[in-house]
Amino acid sequence: MSQVLHKEIDSLKKRLLHLGAVVEEALRRAVRAFVTRDAALARRVIEGDELIDELEVEFEEEGLKIIALHQPVAVDLRFIVAVLRINADLERIGDLAVNLAERAAFLAGVPGFRIPVDLPPMADEAQEMLKASLDALVNMDAELARRIIERDDVVDKVNAAMYHVIYDRIKEDPEQVEPLLHVLSSARYLERVADHATNIAEDVIYMAEGTIVRHLPEDFRATRRQGA
Amino acid sequence: MSQVLHKEIDSLKKRLLHLGAVVEEALRRAVRAFVTRDAALARRVIEGDELIDELEVEFEEEGLKIIALHQPVAVDLRFIVAVLRINADLERIGDLAVNLAERAAFLAGVPGFRIPVDLPPMADEAQEMLKASLDALVNMDAELARRIIERDDVVDKVNAAMYHVIYDRIKEDPEQVEPLLHVLSSARYLERVADHATNIAEDVIYMAEGTIVRHLPEDFRATRRQGA
Repeated sequence: MSQVLHKEIDSLKKRLLHLGAVVEEALRRAVRAFVTRDAALARRVIEGDELIDELEVEFEEEGLKIIALHQPVAVDLRFIVAVLRINADLERIGDLAVNLAERAAFLAGVPGFRIPVDLPPMADEAQEMLKASLDALVNMDAELARRIIERDDVVDKVNAAMYHVIYDRIKEDPEQVEPLLHVLSSARYLERVADHATNIAEDVIYMAEGTIVRHLPEDFRATRRQGA
Repeated sequence: MSQVLHKEIDSLKKRLLHLGAVVEEALRRAVRAFVTRDAALARRVIEGDELIDELEVEFEEEGLKIIALHQPVAVDLRFIVAVLRINADLERIGDLAVNLAERAAFLAGVPGFRIPVDLPPMADEAQEMLKASLDALVNMDAELARRIIERDDVVDKVNAAMYHVIYDRIKEDPEQVEPLLHVLSSARYLERVADHATNIAEDVIYMAEGTIVRHLPEDFRATRRQGA
């Protein structure tokens, strides 16, 4: 294993964390635009996606260059393949921040409308999962990664509960169906952010242990964890 | 370039087309379950996803093994990286077929409910895009791939139009909000199938020409096409 390769891998990790920080910030702003009904802030999130796309493409090219130049094997190859997947997940979280910002911009134009669910706690949870997944990556911490995977269930349940609140609101006031469905979509985007954070956590486990965790049933994951 | 590597790459392509065929069939069945309100067929689609997940994981392992053993460069490495991405897209289309089947199973339990939009033409379009993207892959046909990318716009518009029909139906009959939103979600899944077919087409262009088309604005894509 060459030292040059390890330096390249380190620099790849730094790039990925930089992209992660940009995506985290985009998501934070999109949530704030939603909560404060700030259409100008929402637009800035939408415009900022170009940078995220550029960073993703650059990262992928860099990763492939390293594979081609250094022909890494075993653990190093696994690392690069996993960071390429994480790169794609981060880019998609960036897209979800844009989607959320678009809904925020719409809702900013419906000033009298009361949002019937409490999105910020769910947003906090999704953002914490994202942050934790990047921490797990930095420290190659498979235990932390497993705890993130478990949290995804909670977000799914909160999302499902919101559906029912919104169904009821639509029945009470069907004229508001459009803004209510924008709220529903916003919750779904946050739920998908949590899914991508879960994907990242799964890739951290793959990097740390060589085990493919995605597609495993919940109870099997739990058994593995207790056995670990 | 070794002959052994090219044999491996050929076999990788065959595996991918096999996965593509399995995913196409899952989607076809999910659409039929939706249209005919066949809960038993929907359940078979849901159960069949395990096979798709297995094929995806096997494919990825095979692709990585080839990179590690043969250390391909340039065009060959680009091919393998692109098929790994397509593999992930196909797996996600499989997930969307499951999601559609879940909605179909729900709607099968609401026998009197009239579905207010005509989903089959949209389903046909998404399925044709998927089929064409796999054809473009087999023949490494960048021109066909570009035509697929253009069709994505049509599906997006049909999906947006369905939203408005369903908003109106909800206003007329808010008690039906739940099954109506299941229909809306079903349309959205088909729209996302078309997105993934578009991703596959973009990767075919990348394989054939080395150009990263994803994230490019629509008009730039069109210019490139006329210039080609």
